[in-house]
Parts: sequence; structure tokens; C-alpha cells
Amino acid sequence: MSLLDDVNEPADLDRLTGDQLGLLATEIRAFLVEAVCRRGGHLGPNLGMVELTLALHRVFRSPHDRIVFDTGHQAYVHKLLTGRRERFAGLRGRGGLSGYPRRAESPHDLVENSHASTALSYADGLSRAYALDGVDRAVVAVIGDGALTGGLAWEALNNLATSPGRAVIVLNDNGRSYAPTVGGLAAHLAARHDGGADAGSTIFESLGLDYLGPVDGHDVAQVEAALQKARTADRSVVVHCVTRKGYGHQPSETDEADRLHAVGVVDPLTGRPTATPARTWTDAFSDELLAIGADRPEVVAVSAAMLGPTGLDGFGARYPDRTVDVGIAEQHAVTSAAGLAFGGKHPVVAVYATFLNRAIDQVLLDVALHHLPVTLVLDRAGITGPDGPSHHGMWDLALLGAVPGLRVAAPRDEATLREELREAVAHQDGPTVLRFPKARVGDEIPALYRTGGVDVLRTAAAAPVLLVAVGAMAGPTLRAADLLAEAGVECTVVDPRWVRPVNPAVATLAADHALVVTVEDGIREGGVGAAVAQALGDASVGAPVRALGLPTSFVPHGERAGLLAEHGLDPPGICAAVLHQVSTLPADLDLRVRNRTQTRLSPLPG
Amino acid sequence: MSLLDDVNEPADLDRLTGDQLGLLATEIRAFLVEAVCRRGGHLGPNLGMVELTLALHRVFRSPHDRIVFDTGHQAYVHKLLTGRRERFAGLRGRGGLSGYPRRAESPHDLVENSHASTALSYADGLSRAYALDGVDRAVVAVIGDGALTGGLAWEALNNLATSPGRAVIVLNDNGRSYAPTVGGLAAHLAARHDGGADAGSTIFESLGLDYLGPVDGHDVAQVEAALQKARTADRSVVVHCVTRKGYGHQPSETDEADRLHAVGVVDPLTGRPTATPARTWTDAFSDELLAIGADRPEVVAVSAAMLGPTGLDGFGARYPDRTVDVGIAEQHAVTSAAGLAFGGKHPVVAVYATFLNRAIDQVLLDVALHHLPVTLVLDRAGITGPDGPSHHGMWDLALLGAVPGLRVAAPRDEATLREELREAVAHQDGPTVLRFPKARVGDEIPALYRTGGVDVLRTAAAAPVLLVAVGAMAGPTLRAADLLAEAGVECTVVDPRWVRPVNPAVATLAADHALVVTVEDGIREGGVGAAVAQALGDASVGAPVRALGLPTSFVPHGERAGLLAEHGLDPPGICAAVLHQVSTLPADLDLRVRNRTQTRLSPLPG
Repeated sequence: MSLLDDVNEPADLDRLTGDQLGLLATEIRAFLVEAVCRRGGHLGPNLGMVELTLALHRVFRSPHDRIVFDTGHQAYVHKLLTGRRERFAGLRGRGGLSGYPRRAESPHDLVENSHASTALSYADGLSRAYALDGVDRAVVAVIGDGALTGGLAWEALNNLATSPGRAVIVLNDNGRSYAPTVGGLAAHLAARHDGGADAGSTIFESLGLDYLGPVDGHDVAQVEAALQKARTADRSVVVHCVTRKGYGHQPSETDEADRLHAVGVVDPLTGRPTATPARTWTDAFSDELLAIGADRPEVVAVSAAMLGPTGLDGFGARYPDRTVDVGIAEQHAVTSAAGLAFGGKHPVVAVYATFLNRAIDQVLLDVALHHLPVTLVLDRAGITGPDGPSHHGMWDLALLGAVPGLRVAAPRDEATLREELREAVAHQDGPTVLRFPKARVGDEIPALYRTGGVDVLRTAAAAPVLLVAVGAMAGPTLRAADLLAEAGVECTVVDPRWVRPVNPAVATLAADHALVVTVEDGIREGGVGAAVAQALGDASVGAPVRALGLPTSFVPHGERAGLLAEHGLDPPGICAAVLHQVSTLPADLDLRVRNRTQTRLSPLPG
Repeated sequence: MSLLDDVNEPADLDRLTGDQLGLLATEIRAFLVEAVCRRGGHLGPNLGMVELTLALHRVFRSPHDRIVFDTGHQAYVHKLLTGRRERFAGLRGRGGLSGYPRRAESPHDLVENSHASTALSYADGLSRAYALDGVDRAVVAVIGDGALTGGLAWEALNNLATSPGRAVIVLNDNGRSYAPTVGGLAAHLAARHDGGADAGSTIFESLGLDYLGPVDGHDVAQVEAALQKARTADRSVVVHCVTRKGYGHQPSETDEADRLHAVGVVDPLTGRPTATPARTWTDAFSDELLAIGADRPEVVAVSAAMLGPTGLDGFGARYPDRTVDVGIAEQHAVTSAAGLAFGGKHPVVAVYATFLNRAIDQVLLDVALHHLPVTLVLDRAGITGPDGPSHHGMWDLALLGAVPGLRVAAPRDEATLREELREAVAHQDGPTVLRFPKARVGDEIPALYRTGGVDVLRTAAAAPVLLVAVGAMAGPTLRAADLLAEAGVECTVVDPRWVRPVNPAVATLAADHALVVTVEDGIREGGVGAAVAQALGDASVGAPVRALGLPTSFVPHGERAGLLAEHGLDPPGICAAVLHQVSTLPADLDLRVRNRTQTRLSPLPG
């Protein structure tokens, strides 16, 4: 019987001795390595959080006291200590344990799935609410040094310094985001834990917060002592805990890229994937950007703390001076890119699609207003999978549609990715976006011909239906067209390549069809389909447009393929939607249309 | 002949003695007071920038050296010194001098119209570009202490500290945004200029930047000396200049609210408006929130450095403990509001519509994902007027449409504003938005009746056209309906009240009409009209939807009424658009429709 088996809620930690806590930490690490390597998930960050989380749950009384985990993915140990040990078997699978805090799972989870640098702001609001009500509930925010490079954290620190609320800020300083933390702050923190107490005031103290530390984040007793002190401080206090990402698991501790930050299914002994990784969209982008780097000396790569995951590492190794990691700071990534462009460079800012939501205003007013040539590369666009609601890149097409002069490309395969990336960095008048999913890049999808910039992928004489496929949806859409042909409905299938603004050639093509169906892996509302519908209306093209895409709702974690199918974005789903739409066309909508559909569509299912 | 008359470019300052610079400063202040009081514009900030701008243009060689003004509205003196003296007669009028830097006006303007806290990021990008090219061009960012409370500035400072580029950061510390600057930073800066050099390391030095100061920002020689030193520093340096907002103009210096930050047409001797101000939407909101404050103790007001301009001052005076000014920090305003809501409060976050673009991700993942009851009040929605592209609140309806579970209300008059605000703060399941323009609130617009939550404002038996008016567009839309009736086209006019998500009752009403025309003062693409069109399609309602609104482009400064008319959003414009749309309905679109239009629409213009 292990100690871990007897821990079903935080109170179960109270009776453990220091030695037992040490044993428990070892058991937790073994459990995490086994569970995460088998299912995939966040490994390095959680291995670094073991002792810290034990101390948190011994000092604070969750859920009465509130513990907010910044970025969420560092909460696995918290999950283990709050009765969810057995659910790790289904970690990050559809319907299984989330890789982030989730209120539906436990009363100990408050803030769910979110982006970095938010925890201090939540803590500021929570602690202010409790101060207003005179309630004695501790509010604890656990935040990494990497997340402190995000401006939202600064805004919160500035406010916490003078708020009537009191929060305990647990700074989990492992010196890294994925890669080592960048900028002046990292040096400042390092000086503090290398130089000890002689290093002068911390930034936190300069702002008016209390500061405790640095403490060894892998020494439960030391962390507990600091947290006890912090608990009774009369203002908000930063408890500076120095930890090691991946601590206690050799492959994690020695992984130079990111300390096995997030892994797929890997061998626990080596940290290496058990299967040969397939070539991804990221790989294709990475290779082509490297090639472009040689041809275009003005290209500068910009990353928000994710050089590796976005495929900029190759470019960065070859052109270190032309590669900038700005930290977890998407706003700065975009506005400093505007500055680079003003200075004659062509920045390529590569971020996950979901993280660009952090910088919509900067894209709008700092880049687009000035017509600056900046290329934004959105990896993980569309449904991503196991990271859930905060990581699906399903908002980009809708949000970016609001940006004047912004051109958005959605490549359908590696060849078009390369081509469109070349077009993007050659574009001089305003920003461009390239977006592609987290997936295997797949085989080439050849075009029959190109008309007005639109690639025609499939055609049939007098086909009544025009299918407009956005990016990676081209494959499933073509397969749907096969199914539709079997059902007696011929379709033209096109890839507009540049999906925003709507290419007038799409309207020209649509005018020759009775029905237009668009297929995108973003939200329908305000998406490409909605824009196509409006463009057709403006061009007085009467063909109705049916937009297939995701609903305006948060999509839980699960596998990309399964989630797409669930939302009708697989070949059978697309086929069924088209058949349904054809069947509901008003009989008198357009005689030409009716004739066509009558001729071509029998026999149709109900 | 004044000295100012002889200054047509920065080089003209070189020959002036210290005494002459003092005289010139006095002349500039007199000019600013006269010009701004006559036209309206930013007064206090520019009065505080006189000596600082003189020193900048004597030390740096614009446009070779690059000067970036944060928020832009502090650049009037810069405009005066770069040959635009005479254009002040048309300040902020349509086609006249912009109140912000504008590249079309002068090669001395680089970064245009923008939101706060961006200058350091531009400077980081620019200086990095010049460092890459080995070019000797100074990069200067002028930023206020208020703008430093915005997280983007922090992100930039963190990067500048370790960048190969070198920037001169001129901190224009007047202790205020509109109101006094909030939080720990303000106290830190005050300690430095009150306590002098004994106050320990500054935050900037802790981050690894150089620091010079504090210097008296109204002493040209002192500022020049510091800038000369900064110009040759071997890393980025903060030059801390202490200034007084409104300096040299008594009504500005003594205005407690905001030092006459931005004024309409005012008497230069008193700073008071020359005409009695009309009652605005802001006034109506302010009064109702104050009343709600008494009824609902859980309501907490949150502002991003704009308590006065957003009408929260009344609530703040009555309920100071329940009022939070977070600084120029919209992200934190939203995420700390999420924290407040987790703590049992109902936050009402009041910001200008355009500034919410800064916090889209926070609305999405921090508030909406958790279904938190937070009310966002968007003042200055739609076309605002003289502040130009960065201040028009024309993106909100499109961007917010992407947020699951978010309900958006657009009141049409004061009565509906009060009613919808009450509904918003009573709403428990997820966030709400209320949006209204910068304008006189106008007379009550009574409803004939309410059906399914939709107010019907005008009706006629078998009217073929349904006009859906968003918020303040109800007035012009009703007047357009009068014009249309005169032209033989009867319309039903409705106000959906809650415009996102689309109320199913709109589809029900639409099913009984041949044509739907929506009217909104936001961008058409992804706006309410586009959502209505999609909702009708989903409900298999065949009536075509024509969305009237703003194009996806940046709208220059000018008067609200004129700009709306220019975009066809005045009664004649709406009328003409409807007539055109009616005339282009396909003859065989729908027999019922055709019959109606044939019956009702003759005689129609071409």
C-alpha cells in the first residue's frame, strides 16, 4: 500500500511526517511519469510542482481558501491530492480527466482552462471581494516566472500593491517558459536566488508588495514555513519558490528544448515518442521559413516563448540575430513586430492561433492601421484536441475578419503552405495571416486549375453545389464530394487559398451554382462562410450559402478527428449537411436552380 | 512677430537661446489654449509637454531619429514644431488636422493614432531593426506614467532590457492618466521624485535598464542635458521627466477631475463649456448605475483609468469601496472582474468600446468560459467622431459575437438603457454587454408592443420590409421608414434590444417579410446583420438580409453625424439602400414576395 493511495483529499496530508511527505513526493513523481508518458500531457511543469503543491494543501484549506493555478497545466499534483488519482487513466481523452482545472471535476478547482498570466488578476478580484465582505478566506495564486513576462501579470501586481484585498502570490520560478525565460525579469530573479538577500530590493518590493524568499521549492518544510508567514501577512506577498522543471525525472531534467514541457505518448525511460512522429504542418512551415530566411534577409522571426513548438527553432539556430523570443507576451510580439516593420524588416510572428486572441487590438491598430507588412503564422488553428477549450484555435477566422486590409491564407497541404508563406512575406501592403492545424500535414491535394486566385479541386459539368473548403478542410471536403457524387449530387470543390477578404472569384464561381456550402474548422458565426454569404449578397449572387463550422460554444478536450466528426466536419458529416441543404432549397428559389436540382438530385434521402 | 511664427521645422529651434526657448514655450501655451478651446481637443496633456517636446527636437534629429508618442494625443506641440501651425484652425474636423500623429500629415509622424502603452513596443522593434542593420538612428519613445500601468509597457520594458537595440524612453510623469495614476507604480515613481536619489533602485534599474532623473520636465535645459546623456547610453535608458498636466493654464492646472484632459469647445478663461452640455448616454448610464448601487450591494464598478469619462464617478463618490480604478489596464479590468464574480460580486466594467478590443481574450476565456456574471458597459460605441480611427467603437459587435454565451444589448434610448442595464446586472449565467454611443441620448422612442423580447417600433399591415435597428440606430431607422412610406414601401421596424445572440423572435418576424434590412453603426462583416442572416438561414427563413453598417476599414476623424451619413447610416442613406435592395430582389425569389413587392413598390426609382 502506497502513501498516495491514502490521500483522497487535502486533509489527508495533515498527518504525514516530513519523511512521509518525502516518500509521498517520490510516489507522486513516479505516478506522474507513468500516467503522463502513457497518455501524453504536461510533464515537466508538474514534476516541478510536487513539493510546492503538497505545501500549499497543508497550509491552506481548499476549497474554503482559494488556489488559482496560472495556465492550469501545472495542476496535476493538485488533482492527485484532491481525489482524482484514478481518473488519470483517461487523462485528456474525450470525457476523461482534463489536463487543466475543471469545476465539473472538483470543488477544489476554481479557475479552469486558461491562458498564461491571468492568476494574479483573478486573485486581485477574489481577494477584493472577500475584503469587501470581511470574509477570512485566503486567496493564493500560483504563477510561473515565465507567466510574469506577460503584461497582464504586471497590471495585476500594480493593483495588488494598493488593494484592500490580500493575496499570496506563489512564484514558481523554474527559470523557464518552454525555453528559458527571457528579458530583464529573468536576470532580476536569477540575481535574487543566486545572490541571495544581498541583491537589493526586488521589483515586487519596489511596487509595494511584500516578498519572501527565495525558498527551495523542493523542500516542503521550507515552502510551508514561507506560506504560513505569507498567510498572515498584512498585505499581498510574493513567495519566491525556486524549482526545477522536470525535477526527479532524468529525461525531463535533461531535455534542453523544454524539459519535456508537454509530451505525447513517450517512453518514460527516455522521454522519446514511442512512435515515429508524422510530418506536421509545423514541420512544413519550419522548413519553408528556413529556406525563405536565406532568400529574404529582411525576414525576422518573432515568438512568444514558443520557438520550438511553433517551428521557429530551425530558423533561430540558423539566424539567431534575426530571431526574437519576447516571452509570454503576444501583445508585445505584435506591436514590436510593427516596430520591426517600421524599421524595414518583415517580421514573421508565429504563435498558436488561440494565443493571438491576446493581441487583436495590436493587430488592428498597431499593424493594420499602418498597413505594415507583418506575417502572422497561426499554428494549432481549428480544433487542437487534448488541451480543450482554451487551446482550440477556433476564433481566429472570425476575429481577424474585423481587421481592415488583413489577408488570411489557409493552406490545404504542404505545397500550398509553402506557396502562401512565400506570398505572405512578399506582400508589402498590410499584414497577412497563415493558419494551419495541429495535425499531420498529409498528402498533396492537387488543383485541377486556378481561376482568379482560387484553386479548383474538383469539378463536374453543371454541378449544382459549390463547396468552398477552408485550408485543411479541403481533404474531408473532397471526400465528402465523393460521397455526394455517389448520392447523385455533383459538386464543384474549391480552395480560395486566401480566405479573408473574400476573393471576388468565389462570387463568380458561386453565380454558376445553386447552392454554396462552406467548410471551416472555426466558429460559423462571423467566420469565412458568413463572409462569403455577405460577399455574395453584395455581388447580388442569389445562391444561398450554408456555412459549416463550429458552434459559438466552448469545445471540450478530446481528439481532433473525433471532435471534428462530432461537429459534422468529417466527410460523412459534410455530405449529410449538403444533402439536407439541397433537400430544403425552396422549390421556387430560382428556376434554374430548381431545374438543376430536380435533374440531378434524385434519388435524395428524406 | 512671435518666435513661434519662425519655427517651421525642428532645426529652427537650434538657434534659440535659453531665454528665447522660455518665451517660445509661453507662446506655444497661449497658442494651444486658444486653438484647443476653440475647436476642442486634448488640452492638459499637451500643456504639460511643451518644454519636453522642445528639448526632444533640439537633441534628436527627426525624422532621421524616430520619435514615437504613446497614445498620440500628446503630440500637439510636436505638430506645432513640425510646420503644422496653421492647420490647427481645422483641428479634429473632417479633413482637418488630426488630434494624433498622422503620416499623411508629416514625415515627422511615424506611429499614428493608437491606444495607450504601445510606444515602448514600437521602440523595441524599431531599435532592434536598426541594430540589425547597424544603422545609427536614435529611437525615442515618449510615454506617460499612466500608460506604464498597461501590461504591454511591461512586456516591452522586459524585452528592451536585453535587446541589442537601444531606445530612449522618455517617461512623462505627470502622476495622472485622466485621474491620478493608480497602484504600486505610482507610489514608486512618486517616492523617487519626492525622495530624490536616495529612494533606492528604480524598477527600471532592477530590470536592467539605465535610469536618468528625475528631471524637471518644464526646464528645457535640464531635459536636454538628460536626453543628450541618454542619446549616447550603451543600453536603453529611462529618462524620468516630472511634468504637470495642464501646466501654465490655470483652469487646466486646477481642474480636479482630469486637468482638462480632453475638452469640447470651452471658454479659455474658465475651461468651462461655452454651451450647456446636452444629456448624454453616459449621463443616463451614470444615473441608473447609481440607483442600482443602492438596490444591489453586490454590484462593483470597475474602470480602466476612466472613472469620469465613463460616468462611474457618481457611483464612485457614493460607493468608494465598491469602485475600482485599475489603471490603463483593460485586460486586468476584465480578469479581475472575473475574480470579483468568483467572489460573489457583480462587476460592472465600464470602458470605451474601442478599448475592450484590448481584452477580447479575457472576455472569452476568463469570463465567458466560466459563465461569470460580469456586465461590460461599452461607452463610445459606434462612430465617435473627432478622435479618429483608434477611437471609433465599431468593432465590438463583430468581435463580441465570437464569445459563447455573451449577451449584447444595444439600448435605443434612455428608458431602454435603464431597463437593459437592470436586466444585465440581474443576469446570473454569463456575461452581458451594454453598448451605446458618444452622443446626446435623445428622446424616448416608444415601442408599439413587445414580442418575444423584441420591441416593435413601427408596423403596417403586410409590410414587405423588416428593418432591424441596432441601438441608437433606431431613431434614424424610424425616420428612414417614414421616407420609405412616402416612397410607397411600408416597413416594420423592430429593436431586438438584445442583439447578440440573435433572438429567435427576429426570425419569426422575418418569416413574415420579403426582405430584412439591418442597421448598425459597427462593421458589417461579422456584425449583427451577418448574424441575423445566418440565424435566418439556420431557421430556413428565406427572406434575404441586407446588412447596413460600416465597411471593414479605418474611418478617419470627423463629426459623428457626418461620418454616419457618409456611410449611408442616416435616414436618407438607409432609405436609399432599402429602395435599392427592394428593386434588385430577384423577380422569382419568392412568389409571395414578388406579389407583395409588385403590389406595394410602384413607383420605384431606377
